[in-house]
Amino acid sequence: MTNRILHIGILWSVLLTLPISLYSQNHKYVDPLIGSEGLGNVFIGPSAPYGMVKPGPDNDVASNSGYSANADKEIYGFSQVHVSGTGGGPKYGNISVMPFSSESDTPSKDQTSLRSDEQVRLAYYNVMLNKWNIQTQITTSDRAAFYHFSYPQGAKRFVKIDLGKFLGEAAIPNPDAREAQQFVGSEIEIVSDTEVRGYSRIRGGWNNGSAYTVYFSAVFDQPISTYSTWKKDKIFSNQKIQIDTGDKTGAILSFDGANDDIQMKIGISFLSPLKARANINNEIPHWDFNQTLSQTQNKWEAVFKRLEVNEDASTELKTMLYTGLYHTMLMPVDRTGENPLWENNGPYYDDFYAIWDTYRSSSPLITLLNPSRQVDIINAMLQIYKRDGYMPDARSGNSNGRTQGGSNGEVVIADAFVKGLQGIKYKVALEAMLKDATVPPGGNEEKEGRGGLTDYNRLGYVSTDFVRAGNRTLEYAYNDYCLAIVAKAIKRRGEYWRFIKQADNWQNLWRDIEDHGSRGFIMPKDAHGNWVDSIQCNAKYGRISYVPYTPVMQDWPICVCWWCGFFYEASSWEYSLSVPHDVAKLVELSGGKEAFQKRLNTLFDKGLYNVANEPSFLSPNLYHWIGRPDLSNDRIHQIIDNNYNISASGIPGNDDSGAMSSWLAFHMIGLYPNAGQSYYLINAPYFKKTTIHQENGNDFIIEAKNLSEQNKYIQSVQLNGVDYTKAFIEHSDIVKGGSLTIIMGSKPSDKWGTELLPPSLSDKEI
Amino acid sequence: MTNRILHIGILWSVLLTLPISLYSQNHKYVDPLIGSEGLGNVFIGPSAPYGMVKPGPDNDVASNSGYSANADKEIYGFSQVHVSGTGGGPKYGNISVMPFSSESDTPSKDQTSLRSDEQVRLAYYNVMLNKWNIQTQITTSDRAAFYHFSYPQGAKRFVKIDLGKFLGEAAIPNPDAREAQQFVGSEIEIVSDTEVRGYSRIRGGWNNGSAYTVYFSAVFDQPISTYSTWKKDKIFSNQKIQIDTGDKTGAILSFDGANDDIQMKIGISFLSPLKARANINNEIPHWDFNQTLSQTQNKWEAVFKRLEVNEDASTELKTMLYTGLYHTMLMPVDRTGENPLWENNGPYYDDFYAIWDTYRSSSPLITLLNPSRQVDIINAMLQIYKRDGYMPDARSGNSNGRTQGGSNGEVVIADAFVKGLQGIKYKVALEAMLKDATVPPGGNEEKEGRGGLTDYNRLGYVSTDFVRAGNRTLEYAYNDYCLAIVAKAIKRRGEYWRFIKQADNWQNLWRDIEDHGSRGFIMPKDAHGNWVDSIQCNAKYGRISYVPYTPVMQDWPICVCWWCGFFYEASSWEYSLSVPHDVAKLVELSGGKEAFQKRLNTLFDKGLYNVANEPSFLSPNLYHWIGRPDLSNDRIHQIIDNNYNISASGIPGNDDSGAMSSWLAFHMIGLYPNAGQSYYLINAPYFKKTTIHQENGNDFIIEAKNLSEQNKYIQSVQLNGVDYTKAFIEHSDIVKGGSLTIIMGSKPSDKWGTELLPPSLSDKEI
Repeated sequence: MTNRILHIGILWSVLLTLPISLYSQNHKYVDPLIGSEGLGNVFIGPSAPYGMVKPGPDNDVASNSGYSANADKEIYGFSQVHVSGTGGGPKYGNISVMPFSSESDTPSKDQTSLRSDEQVRLAYYNVMLNKWNIQTQITTSDRAAFYHFSYPQGAKRFVKIDLGKFLGEAAIPNPDAREAQQFVGSEIEIVSDTEVRGYSRIRGGWNNGSAYTVYFSAVFDQPISTYSTWKKDKIFSNQKIQIDTGDKTGAILSFDGANDDIQMKIGISFLSPLKARANINNEIPHWDFNQTLSQTQNKWEAVFKRLEVNEDASTELKTMLYTGLYHTMLMPVDRTGENPLWENNGPYYDDFYAIWDTYRSSSPLITLLNPSRQVDIINAMLQIYKRDGYMPDARSGNSNGRTQGGSNGEVVIADAFVKGLQGIKYKVALEAMLKDATVPPGGNEEKEGRGGLTDYNRLGYVSTDFVRAGNRTLEYAYNDYCLAIVAKAIKRRGEYWRFIKQADNWQNLWRDIEDHGSRGFIMPKDAHGNWVDSIQCNAKYGRISYVPYTPVMQDWPICVCWWCGFFYEASSWEYSLSVPHDVAKLVELSGGKEAFQKRLNTLFDKGLYNVANEPSFLSPNLYHWIGRPDLSNDRIHQIIDNNYNISASGIPGNDDSGAMSSWLAFHMIGLYPNAGQSYYLINAPYFKKTTIHQENGNDFIIEAKNLSEQNKYIQSVQLNGVDYTKAFIEHSDIVKGGSLTIIMGSKPSDKWGTELLPPSLSDKEI
Repeated sequence: MTNRILHIGILWSVLLTLPISLYSQNHKYVDPLIGSEGLGNVFIGPSAPYGMVKPGPDNDVASNSGYSANADKEIYGFSQVHVSGTGGGPKYGNISVMPFSSESDTPSKDQTSLRSDEQVRLAYYNVMLNKWNIQTQITTSDRAAFYHFSYPQGAKRFVKIDLGKFLGEAAIPNPDAREAQQFVGSEIEIVSDTEVRGYSRIRGGWNNGSAYTVYFSAVFDQPISTYSTWKKDKIFSNQKIQIDTGDKTGAILSFDGANDDIQMKIGISFLSPLKARANINNEIPHWDFNQTLSQTQNKWEAVFKRLEVNEDASTELKTMLYTGLYHTMLMPVDRTGENPLWENNGPYYDDFYAIWDTYRSSSPLITLLNPSRQVDIINAMLQIYKRDGYMPDARSGNSNGRTQGGSNGEVVIADAFVKGLQGIKYKVALEAMLKDATVPPGGNEEKEGRGGLTDYNRLGYVSTDFVRAGNRTLEYAYNDYCLAIVAKAIKRRGEYWRFIKQADNWQNLWRDIEDHGSRGFIMPKDAHGNWVDSIQCNAKYGRISYVPYTPVMQDWPICVCWWCGFFYEASSWEYSLSVPHDVAKLVELSGGKEAFQKRLNTLFDKGLYNVANEPSFLSPNLYHWIGRPDLSNDRIHQIIDNNYNISASGIPGNDDSGAMSSWLAFHMIGLYPNAGQSYYLINAPYFKKTTIHQENGNDFIIEAKNLSEQNKYIQSVQLNGVDYTKAFIEHSDIVKGGSLTIIMGSKPSDKWGTELLPPSLSDKEI
């Protein structure tokens, strides 16, 4: 993937050649089931880090992960491609395989079963299919899945490959539902007595993407005895090929050998069936299930070893931490060499789902632990800009779309830049950001770039002529800040001056009104510059109904569609605090420090804060900007303790490709990034000692002395042995290696973090 | 393709079952070489009507058709996909095959030859490859090409299949040139001793399209003896497969049998290699070259028989006419069942290249002769709107793009509507037109929809803030007229009123200035409503240079880029006459009939008219609107006689997918459509008698009595035996069947066509 591993010191080079088990077994702490119930929507099947193939059980076509914890839902197959933690309409669920048994020689193609004995571990899934007592075990490499089916002794053994199955298929009469996946075509060929190839072509899904094609090759460890293929509902015995005529196809294979077990490797590709087979040959040139399992575990260890915590930490805390890392690194998916749209000579990643979710904490976490990977991801984003015209804000199935708010690629790039990531052409990155900031994307204005840009560039805000005007304005202002920072550093002063000015644009929607005892909120304004007091909600019985627009209003989906509100998925109470580049100004406009503290308290105490969504990710940390990091600390621990745990419902919202999980992981080690800026806020960690073994070979140790249930407040901090009074630390201090010693105590300190506050745009000479 | 053939009367049903040679051999009059030299850029290889596969010789990668008449250019292969008549950057040229001979058992993959004995006929191409004396004959069905290679006796026989070749590949260091095709990937597999499969994946080209994939299956009439395959520059003997790794691949095959000839069928598909093979099996399930040739000839006859002319007409005239029809029906290409992007249950056409060119005369010609085909084409356009978001203005390789001016799908739809085409959902069509008219396409604003729409909808014209503001404004006004006509008819009065008003928008750029003795021109205006007198042309030696913008100005590509002028590829002198819906207003604004006549005379006599491009297609007919059809007649015959002939350079401009050819064909039968409106202008035909054998079974006969070189003016006209004084005729009069009898004489009539003028918007009560 990268040559940067050469930069790692000699010590690690030596260690890398040893069996991984010698130095860590952190993968054992990963529990893929965390977040599989409730809102989490995580993928529970095996996956390599950023792995292209994600095989797993499907028992609910309406589920985003294909999986429902509901024991009454029958498994209908194991498909090879999934996403993790997403909301909205599902994506993928392609190339569904199913072992089954039947007395009939010509069984039906509809085969489902209840399940039991589910075992879910990192890179491993096991289930018993009750109907036939078939045990199914799955592991995986990056691009090929490995299945082990154990049939009851003497049972007739069948395997079905179904190319007509996929997630999110809308029922007739509405196959064109806005976020439904739609079937395009499929093809299957029984190439030899041990190999089947083909593809499934699907369009749509959450991001309204163009058609994508998942090619596969399935190879078996024993000869297929008899076979039939189908097209639509008609089954053809002994017919090897079903050519693509726009219909659903599949195959039923039977196996006669003496063995009760069948092993199958299934490679996928986005280029061709032969490439899918090559992916098997490259990655799993054997039939040793455990070898593949162990290799993938080791790939994860190579990431997990970057973050070492004190050995005596509780299993629960380690489980939360490493599962957090695991979720963060499931996506975006590494499809280098698998791009069907342009040349394959650079890194290519897909399933940015969505950067709106992941820019805040996921990208920074990858940057901290695996910067070479982040460089590849950003270079893929720049190539997407070059070839598709815009960086993605979301992208899946090789298609950009959809944007919920800003063009948050800007934040990702600024974050990489201020943290000194090398190997990125920042001039090209500036070009890509300028495209976002100057060229309206057109169409429904939610595929890429910035919707409502004509307003924003003309008026300084997005007016109520456009949907999601509130969060678009806020996010564009921050995107502009990020653009400006990069422009300045590469000496593009003209762009710097334009965009640093625009970074204040959020103030154009700041209205001095009061709600729940706090003043000043981001509120809707029309294109003529008039505040909008009430909004049209519906029309019934011949009358149009208006309701006042207030800071607690959620106009979606009651008055307008989900994507049509003033704010996306949140209220003004939440979004009005979302000014990550100028909290000082926010404090000032809110009436000063005391008023701001009261405002934050109201947010959290009156149920106005939403733990389940990203817009408020930074909010519990905002007390840092009024010199009260102890209050941030209280809120964060309160949020985590009340909402996160190691149960299946231990993630409070859609995990969103690891966004929630990375938020948690950062807070567990006592750091939290303000993405796009160069520092981390410091809070009390959950671990006595955390060592960041960085890619550059430098270790950075965070030690929390006297940490206990009572001693939950930071008294003082030392950086490399020297007193450190700021409640934030620069990324560059970490990169150098060293130690952050945090002295804990039972009461808040009245010194630490109270004077030198984290940076704000309005503090600075610009 | 369609069930509408059932509507044809019994007589034709009977005739259809007879060998086609019994009733016509018009295909013999087609000369595919017309337009192959000079600007015509026509494709010269064999093709079925609207045929998906277009096999032909390539001897110039920079040529739009792959072909250069230059005898010194060596043929480097015969590729399977081409377009016809296009300008700008080339497209396609995929799956290049080449027979060759070599003494070596391991010959080089670079094989080229000079040519001789070229024979080019409808559905047939023959050439001698001089280097090895290999005769190559090609014919084709819709989706599979048929090659017959005749090697010299005893020669070592090789066939090369090269997936790395394609047209318009830009040289390093600029492979990303704006209109270059770019290589994405390829794959080849020698499947058996008689079959090779694979694909070539390419992106870009004139329309800046996304990647498209041409899959193929090549089958041989004898076993392959030895083979090698290559990747990049490395040749691998006896290696059957080169998997897609983003590199150029190919195969060299040798044949050892006793036969000196090799026959090869090569099917293509846009879905899969197996589908490509199925296309061979469906269409050419035999090895009879002549049978395929004859079947494709017969397909063309089925079209040509719709237009019967007097038997004693000269071969030259018939050649011009039938070659005109032939060129018109090469594209768009029928890819029904071959769409990789969405469901394949309706008609799908690609290679609209561009509707800007073809809406004026090509679409109306297809509507007249083959309305069921036009219904399918329009339904494909509507499905493209539904799935891709906008109707195409141009489309190739399954990607919309680029628009040169308006969203001219509106004209195509209105034309179908006013001519009564059934089987089109006009409500969906209205939706598609409204999308064009209301939702800016974004990005570079030249992919689809209407660029500069924000200006147009706010100001009533496109300002100089946008490129091509002049022709965009003019074309949008006409597009709006077309939209309004359909809206009115389906009782959408709100849209009707809005858009019929907007149909006057061209007047917002009408400036009352004088040039060459005529008054009033479409001129640039800025966003503040000020006329723009001079434009920035370049900056040199520290000074910015301005030049006056005048009606004869061509600011491209001297001052600005090709696509960046005020008008696209024409001057204000040409475009200011392009108001097809309100010529009466144009006459009025120009100062009345006399001034307008003078203006037209100046246009033609002073070299301000450009025969080689579409914007002036209607201009020679404008005399009709001042009651002087005799002058239209003079101009048209003058233009044809001076610019069109049966030589290789017999088409004066890019044929543009048959646009020039259809303009010619219409005028040869004495009719010319004003596309989007329901009538044809009448001029003197070139034939004494033309019978339109319509799909509905009704014959319409155009008879020109006393036609001779001297008798070139229309004296009077009778419709179905009744005096007819108008110089235009309704489509509905033709559909009913009947006769138009035109009495010719040596002097213009002072009665016919002088009083009741063709319709204009400002004539009507709206």
